[in-house]
Amino acid sequence: MEGWSRKVYLELPVPSEEDHRPLQERLFAALEDSGPFRLERAAYIRMRPKSLQEAQGICEAGGWRVTAVLCFDGCGWELLRLEPGDTSGAHYGLCADLGSTTIVMELADLNTGEILASESVFNPQINWGEDILSRIFYTKDRPERRKRLQKATAEGFRSLMEGLKEKTGIDAFSCPALTVSGNTAMLHFLLGLDAFGVFQTPYAVQTLAPDPCRGEELGIPLDGFVYCCPGMANYLGGDIISGMLATGIPDQEEICVFLDVGTNGELVVGNRDFLLAGAGAAGPALEGGVVHTGMRAEEGAVDRVTTENGRLKAHVIGGGAAKGICGSGIVDLIAELYLNGWVDLRGRFQEDAPGVVHLPGREEDELEAAVEYAPGLYFYQGDMDEFLKTKAAAMTMVEYMMNLIGLTLEEVGRFYVAGAFGTHIDKEAAVTIGLYPDMDREKIISPGNTSLKGAERLLFDRTLMEKARDIISRMQYVQFGAVEDFLHLMVAATAIPHTDLNRFPSVAKRLEERRHCK
Amino acid sequence: MEGWSRKVYLELPVPSEEDHRPLQERLFAALEDSGPFRLERAAYIRMRPKSLQEAQGICEAGGWRVTAVLCFDGCGWELLRLEPGDTSGAHYGLCADLGSTTIVMELADLNTGEILASESVFNPQINWGEDILSRIFYTKDRPERRKRLQKATAEGFRSLMEGLKEKTGIDAFSCPALTVSGNTAMLHFLLGLDAFGVFQTPYAVQTLAPDPCRGEELGIPLDGFVYCCPGMANYLGGDIISGMLATGIPDQEEICVFLDVGTNGELVVGNRDFLLAGAGAAGPALEGGVVHTGMRAEEGAVDRVTTENGRLKAHVIGGGAAKGICGSGIVDLIAELYLNGWVDLRGRFQEDAPGVVHLPGREEDELEAAVEYAPGLYFYQGDMDEFLKTKAAAMTMVEYMMNLIGLTLEEVGRFYVAGAFGTHIDKEAAVTIGLYPDMDREKIISPGNTSLKGAERLLFDRTLMEKARDIISRMQYVQFGAVEDFLHLMVAATAIPHTDLNRFPSVAKRLEERRHCK
Repeated sequence: MEGWSRKVYLELPVPSEEDHRPLQERLFAALEDSGPFRLERAAYIRMRPKSLQEAQGICEAGGWRVTAVLCFDGCGWELLRLEPGDTSGAHYGLCADLGSTTIVMELADLNTGEILASESVFNPQINWGEDILSRIFYTKDRPERRKRLQKATAEGFRSLMEGLKEKTGIDAFSCPALTVSGNTAMLHFLLGLDAFGVFQTPYAVQTLAPDPCRGEELGIPLDGFVYCCPGMANYLGGDIISGMLATGIPDQEEICVFLDVGTNGELVVGNRDFLLAGAGAAGPALEGGVVHTGMRAEEGAVDRVTTENGRLKAHVIGGGAAKGICGSGIVDLIAELYLNGWVDLRGRFQEDAPGVVHLPGREEDELEAAVEYAPGLYFYQGDMDEFLKTKAAAMTMVEYMMNLIGLTLEEVGRFYVAGAFGTHIDKEAAVTIGLYPDMDREKIISPGNTSLKGAERLLFDRTLMEKARDIISRMQYVQFGAVEDFLHLMVAATAIPHTDLNRFPSVAKRLEERRHCK
Repeated sequence: MEGWSRKVYLELPVPSEEDHRPLQERLFAALEDSGPFRLERAAYIRMRPKSLQEAQGICEAGGWRVTAVLCFDGCGWELLRLEPGDTSGAHYGLCADLGSTTIVMELADLNTGEILASESVFNPQINWGEDILSRIFYTKDRPERRKRLQKATAEGFRSLMEGLKEKTGIDAFSCPALTVSGNTAMLHFLLGLDAFGVFQTPYAVQTLAPDPCRGEELGIPLDGFVYCCPGMANYLGGDIISGMLATGIPDQEEICVFLDVGTNGELVVGNRDFLLAGAGAAGPALEGGVVHTGMRAEEGAVDRVTTENGRLKAHVIGGGAAKGICGSGIVDLIAELYLNGWVDLRGRFQEDAPGVVHLPGREEDELEAAVEYAPGLYFYQGDMDEFLKTKAAAMTMVEYMMNLIGLTLEEVGRFYVAGAFGTHIDKEAAVTIGLYPDMDREKIISPGNTSLKGAERLLFDRTLMEKARDIISRMQYVQFGAVEDFLHLMVAATAIPHTDLNRFPSVAKRLEERRHCK
């Protein structure tokens, strides 16, 4: 297993009357005699004028004992730079998940495989639009604005590298390799490309498989190369392929369902024998995006809701006053409302339920039912409807795809819910509201940020780039939008947990228990 | 035969609902289906973010009929840029001889093989020293000065490209390939490298085989790559290997002698079976460099000397008053002085010779013999001595190397005298003074600027890079400096034409004729 960069310690023969080979030849010969390159004699090694300009001074400073830092450029190796002495023990790399909201970066020790530190930052692109679509429109036909977004993205990377440097004392800027995983639009912005094709017919984008390039070509102050995880389609980008690398689904014997809920909802069903993939609008609502008082899972957010003594009880991140509610809080809240019988299976607030009030709603002249989930904070009927529509969309993608190949829930070996959403929500609550299927809880897996984890794996093992291409070529893309059937399935899935309660025996059982307790 | 760049006309399928492949994939697939790449399916093709950023606009402007400009980067192909429409008929390249005094550049039509224009300029490095050594010392341990020389060199290239553009109307700056041939020091300056190792023990330079790099990496405003002809040794640089490519000596059946007289003197003896090479200080004097009134072969220079009615007659370039004498003039002058009996075989001026005067010479208190070769212009005894020493050095290199392998003059099939020097001097005069051996005149060839011609060949055929490496690996380098024998040979060769007149039967005959005429 080998990554994109190498650090090779060389004890160079000192130039003498007998051995007056040019420095470049001396270096290349020493590399060819070294372990890694001895195995691949035909390896193409090159050196830029810039590196060569500095090489002699470094060799002299290091007493002709130097460490060569090499990068694979997609075709051959480049001797990026020399470092005096033996620095092969300090071989670090970076990997990043370029999310539309957050960029996360890790600093890895490429010798030990250890992740030394992690940093995250809001994606500075947010200044030009909270959602991707706004950014796409902002940059449409405006190359100078694309440059602006690229610069902002690069600045995000820079600040992360700065942060990692502060945390670890390791110069992140000199890492020879940075792997990046992100959705198609994000990679377009990173590369300074027009992302309009992501969204607009005929949906032909600029690239789904960017070639390795230098950090400097992207405005990133990195003395190394940037490697992007390739994507499969506009809405099934490198972040999902990265998720495949992270979970290993394409190599598993068991049939897996992989659901990534973020700005969008992406789904993969398959194993080593087949891979179906699709994407749909199933995102922001689940993360609290379209809820009146929705917010990110940060200080002041209600992230857990329980029922105590017949009343809702909210847990607030940080312990202070509640400012709003995040995705996991919403899932809990709906589950509690439903189990307490305060909403029906259609999500309608029950008039006689405690805490249910009527307030001026979205439309000025009408009152809207709502529940006070924390002092002064209300969850409206409209919020409920939006959320249920979205959870239905997500679940219907899963159901539709399983139907397509006649797959039953019993045949699913693992149900992955990727992303921060999957990490934070309560499995039971998610099953209760029908966001997750009612299956063996052991089989429901929250693998976390698989986009980042895939980038991490790609950093350590460059053969995974080939693997990613192989996965992409094996994947069958399923278009949900074009399917009539889809809407019918979705109507049924809008119920809590579903119009057919037989599909959710554990929910039926809990409902019974809760009623019994009253 | 194919060069470093390709222009491939592509009629791209217009993106549609049915075919919404990303632009990059669309381009690469079209390239793989095109003639040249169909033959090499495994070819690695890459595209930089910069090129991709501009690609969509160009495709739309060209109605999806575009020409891809590709460069071989030493390992794979880079899609450098797109041009709207079919521009494959306009495929141009540049080649240059980077001489220490003059830089010559040609613009070539890569489709027809025609050289469209040629430009030359004084090497701007001259501002930091007439001779290479001064420049080497100027830049020693001073990276900022190396940058300065590099910048000046790049400026030389820029002005040549500007000149070629003006002459032809073709945008030389957009040529995808520029091949450069030059001696080791010149290539170091071009690359911004410390050239001190060229001159100083242990003579380990930075590189003899620079990798392909982008024009921009050298500060040259070229939207393409620069390819340098590799060298064999410090004093046997890419200019000589280029000369081998130009003359084809390494493939010839006949044994050849290749002598390049420039700032230095370089010699190759060999054919397809063997190649011996060496270099020595045999330069500037022959070009008039150390002569009192020596000058370049430009307006005002005496370039031909004959004897009419018992008096020297000088021909002046441009027809005006003589300002000095260039290499070919000196050779003629010495030949005439010798044939007329005005100097003896040691080059001593004869007291009774017409036109011989005594003037204050180099040393203040002594008078020096001299001859007035043009009104008010004198050729001194000291000039003569210097010149003979140098011609002896050049000839002794040839003789020594031939002796080394027991080669006789009869076995030499071709005697090449490369460079401007060889082009301008009169063969008979050169034989008369013993600068050329007395052999069949047909076998004495003046191939001109073989450094430039080799760069030209390399531009049209990139496989010659491999050929150059092969030549280098076959060459045996002969160190003249270390040889004791050398000095003895040289003393004999300092005579006009040589102490052993039997080696120059045609000179003996002419001497006889001339005496008879008197």
